[in-house]
Amino acid sequence: MTIPVSFIGLGNMGLPMARNLLKAGFAVTVFNRTKERAETLVTEGVVVADSVKAAIQPGSIVITMLANDAALMDIARDIPAALGKGGLHISMSTVSPETSRTLLATHAAVGSDFIAAPVFGRPEAAAAQKLWICTSGDAAAIVRARPVLAAMSQGIFEFGAEVGAANVLKLTGNFMIIAAIEAMAEALALGEKNGLNRSDLMSFFGQTIFACPIYQNYGRILAERAYEPAGFKLELGMKDVRLVRDTAEEAKVPMPVADLVHARLLSALAKGRGNLDWTAIELASAEDAGLR
Amino acid sequence: MTIPVSFIGLGNMGLPMARNLLKAGFAVTVFNRTKERAETLVTEGVVVADSVKAAIQPGSIVITMLANDAALMDIARDIPAALGKGGLHISMSTVSPETSRTLLATHAAVGSDFIAAPVFGRPEAAAAQKLWICTSGDAAAIVRARPVLAAMSQGIFEFGAEVGAANVLKLTGNFMIIAAIEAMAEALALGEKNGLNRSDLMSFFGQTIFACPIYQNYGRILAERAYEPAGFKLELGMKDVRLVRDTAEEAKVPMPVADLVHARLLSALAKGRGNLDWTAIELASAEDAGLR
Amino acid sequence: MTIPVSFIGLGNMGLPMARNLLKAGFAVTVFNRTKERAETLVTEGVVVADSVKAAIQPGSIVITMLANDAALMDIARDIPAALGKGGLHISMSTVSPETSRTLLATHAAVGSDFIAAPVFGRPEAAAAQKLWICTSGDAAAIVRARPVLAAMSQGIFEFGAEVGAANVLKLTGNFMIIAAIEAMAEALALGEKNGLNRSDLMSFFGQTIFACPIYQNYGRILAERAYEPAGFKLELGMKDVRLVRDTAEEAKVPMPVADLVHARLLSALAKGRGNLDWTAIELASAEDAGLR
Amino acid sequence: MTIPVSFIGLGNMGLPMARNLLKAGFAVTVFNRTKERAETLVTEGVVVADSVKAAIQPGSIVITMLANDAALMDIARDIPAALGKGGLHISMSTVSPETSRTLLATHAAVGSDFIAAPVFGRPEAAAAQKLWICTSGDAAAIVRARPVLAAMSQGIFEFGAEVGAANVLKLTGNFMIIAAIEAMAEALALGEKNGLNRSDLMSFFGQTIFACPIYQNYGRILAERAYEPAGFKLELGMKDVRLVRDTAEEAKVPMPVADLVHARLLSALAKGRGNLDWTAIELASAEDAGLR
Repeated sequence: MTIPVSFIGLGNMGLPMARNLLKAGFAVTVFNRTKERAETLVTEGVVVADSVKAAIQPGSIVITMLANDAALMDIARDIPAALGKGGLHISMSTVSPETSRTLLATHAAVGSDFIAAPVFGRPEAAAAQKLWICTSGDAAAIVRARPVLAAMSQGIFEFGAEVGAANVLKLTGNFMIIAAIEAMAEALALGEKNGLNRSDLMSFFGQTIFACPIYQNYGRILAERAYEPAGFKLELGMKDVRLVRDTAEEAKVPMPVADLVHARLLSALAKGRGNLDWTAIELASAEDAGLR
Repeated sequence: MTIPVSFIGLGNMGLPMARNLLKAGFAVTVFNRTKERAETLVTEGVVVADSVKAAIQPGSIVITMLANDAALMDIARDIPAALGKGGLHISMSTVSPETSRTLLATHAAVGSDFIAAPVFGRPEAAAAQKLWICTSGDAAAIVRARPVLAAMSQGIFEFGAEVGAANVLKLTGNFMIIAAIEAMAEALALGEKNGLNRSDLMSFFGQTIFACPIYQNYGRILAERAYEPAGFKLELGMKDVRLVRDTAEEAKVPMPVADLVHARLLSALAKGRGNLDWTAIELASAEDAGLR
Repeated sequence: MTIPVSFIGLGNMGLPMARNLLKAGFAVTVFNRTKERAETLVTEGVVVADSVKAAIQPGSIVITMLANDAALMDIARDIPAALGKGGLHISMSTVSPETSRTLLATHAAVGSDFIAAPVFGRPEAAAAQKLWICTSGDAAAIVRARPVLAAMSQGIFEFGAEVGAANVLKLTGNFMIIAAIEAMAEALALGEKNGLNRSDLMSFFGQTIFACPIYQNYGRILAERAYEPAGFKLELGMKDVRLVRDTAEEAKVPMPVADLVHARLLSALAKGRGNLDWTAIELASAEDAGLR
Repeated sequence: MTIPVSFIGLGNMGLPMARNLLKAGFAVTVFNRTKERAETLVTEGVVVADSVKAAIQPGSIVITMLANDAALMDIARDIPAALGKGGLHISMSTVSPETSRTLLATHAAVGSDFIAAPVFGRPEAAAAQKLWICTSGDAAAIVRARPVLAAMSQGIFEFGAEVGAANVLKLTGNFMIIAAIEAMAEALALGEKNGLNRSDLMSFFGQTIFACPIYQNYGRILAERAYEPAGFKLELGMKDVRLVRDTAEEAKVPMPVADLVHARLLSALAKGRGNLDWTAIELASAEDAGLR
């Protein structure tokens, strides 16, 4: 018998993730604010619900993949009551650890479980079942979630029982990505002004000491300034850097590089670049060097 | 018949590099200020010279691998005359593009060639013939240098005829490395203060989105704070960041992350940490967060 | 006949300000959460109320001087209804422009006026009637407020009809103060390490090119490291810098110096220095230079 | 009898300074690379020399006021021999403390004295005898210099016997000035984007908490963006900030605000703004905020 799973939030990431659950044989019911988007999955076997409540069976598993803390908190209002005793909420959005702690408490009050399971990977990786997932929360709940998570990823890493831990880890990762982008941007400005070819420069590092996806993929985008269409919109990147800064402030951790990339993102927004890929902060390094 | 090569500068990098030339069958004559260090190679077949001049045969190839611009300029005073017409100087030190341009001119005056061929890799990589080499300069001279360089490396990348180009590339690389170290340090402070295990954090990224040597090796050192013994001394790292800043100033390229890591290195020197590995700038992030 | 004025919030600033209103002949009714503090003014002629509502006469003038936006918003809930048609709320706290805009709307709904009138000056200046006041809001309301404000200040400056303008001005001022503190701290570290006497250095500038209160007063505190007792607690300074950053983010204005002083304040809080004067961010410059 | 004084370097500052010496009754002999400029003072009673040597009488006093360390070192080569035993060199340029230490040694070798006496004030202040002078060096030599310095200034401050001390003080001052400019620039961007009038904003602070020349004069220039003609050219400001950074590096003092203003100046140079007043770094704050 197929295991029922509800999936809420069919954005650029959620849609391919839900599709992979279907492929793996789960009985998937979905809910999305824009219903039309959900209906694209009907022919593949998904059931489309009209509300969060209607999407959830008591005691089952629900996955949320939403744009930000506010969207998750809004949607999550109806989840504990719908899940009830024995249910499990797997929260996969990039949100603050505080949000996870708050939601864990509201689920505990009705006897359902809650774990954080944010992901690394762009939409292409989600489609290819190549996401990396990091989890935190109750160990038994994570055991229960594993088959579901496995259907969407190439690897699952556990970060202990404190439910916000995986959220913090996700934020440190996005921070290190945008920090690497800024470093590549400055390196490119220095190289370009000294006559080096931008693609040769990034290609060299992507084949040698920085032979990993972040430097290879972003390096190519940066070298070519391929900021449109956006793989990850700058305005969404700003949301994540805000979460990093808020979490750092809460924990009293000065992060000067986080402040610097925040200033780059803010300036890019001031210049109307919010819909470009977040690598477009590179334009500031070029402009500051008089290159544009 | 074996091809004669002179190797000047037998530091932590130079010694294993010269040894690989021997293994590859070159007839190697060496010169090192501290002669004792050179003599460790005698049983392996090397000839030890008493001076730069004595180490060099007219028209042959000489390699220099020295600590900084000043040391190179000092040693290089005697090289053009000793090499004479048809000679080739392969400069592998991390130095400024300006130094390469100056040396090219002094060699041209006597009819010898000069190319820049700086390397990426720590001493272990040098020993294992796993260096990455980037070259710039006259194309024919690089063709001539290739067999020599191949004996010391796992890959050679060319960056054109402008002799300083490879030096700039080397500087952008070292800059991106120390920038990544700073980003990891800030991420670790944020993680640690939120209860994450430092090694788990770095291990996750080293296996996933940052699966490349820089994040894997430095990530482990940072997680464990294994700053002694130093793989690359902080005071030497400072020398490289100074070259980055000087080159950026010359080219009028603001590099805020370079300024930030420079401040970290300077503070570490002020605190007497010059002999630790340059990853030890991490201590500042921890201290600023009240962790130590 | 004496004009009735209500004063809410008798902190280090509010108490001497209310006292100056009494001295100027206003009939002052006060409310403070900690009633004992209010009662110290009874012998001087003040009436102490038990609640915000009880403190306010319909159609009169009420002044608020509270610790932050949250405290003001909380207290302000009862003010419009108590004031009613023809009343005037003079808001003198350091708060966000957004808070002023929100409160203006709630007052407009009942026919009362609202202006922003934040102040510059420490408690000693408040006691000496030496505050500087900047106002924004409806011109007629400001005319009505002037006699009241004059009793507490040495000068009143108007910044137009947009009610949040004076709040923004106040934030730019506090930002420039903490920026000057950081600059003095860095200058002192450079001077001290080069053998200059800290007091001689600051005294010179306070008598010459920086002969103004901020550099004279803070310069002396910094030179002597007289951080206790605090004239303005570091944790309150952090509140103001947060407002600066929030306002800058809202307006999309990158402010790298604001980010830098925020990092200094955050680190000081992480090290348990929240109760020192906010000039104590100087300790970080000294520590970074290996001076302590 | 009039005391003979030689004055070398008749730039925007040197010319009015030499004129004040004439007015005070000193017998002034001048030398300037561009002789025409020196000759404008002939009708006022000055003697124009053809060389440094010709300008100097043995055992007398010579003042230098030159553009930078290199120009001073170049000119100073001939001074000790010309002055000989009992002579005094008063060095008023903005140079590094190291340069003063070097020159002190060369003078000591021939029995002449050397003191540092850099000045604060723009050309208008020099013309009005309103400079502030800070001195360091041998106490007796400073006593001897005082009448000469008094003729050019409104105040003389002593900073002890270590000859580089006054140079360091001068650098800390120029650093605090450019730091204040950056802070004003960021404050103006925040104010302008929130609807405040730029001149109103700066005028308020210049009349209240920042009522001192730096904020008043630069505040007006910044509010009106009156960057041409330059009172102090940006490219000269860069020279001074470089000296600050070099001195900070030498002393191992991280100065993040110095790094920030250096990046602003460097970017301005990259954009071709080197001939504008150094306040023009403000344009970067405006551009980053999307205001231009």
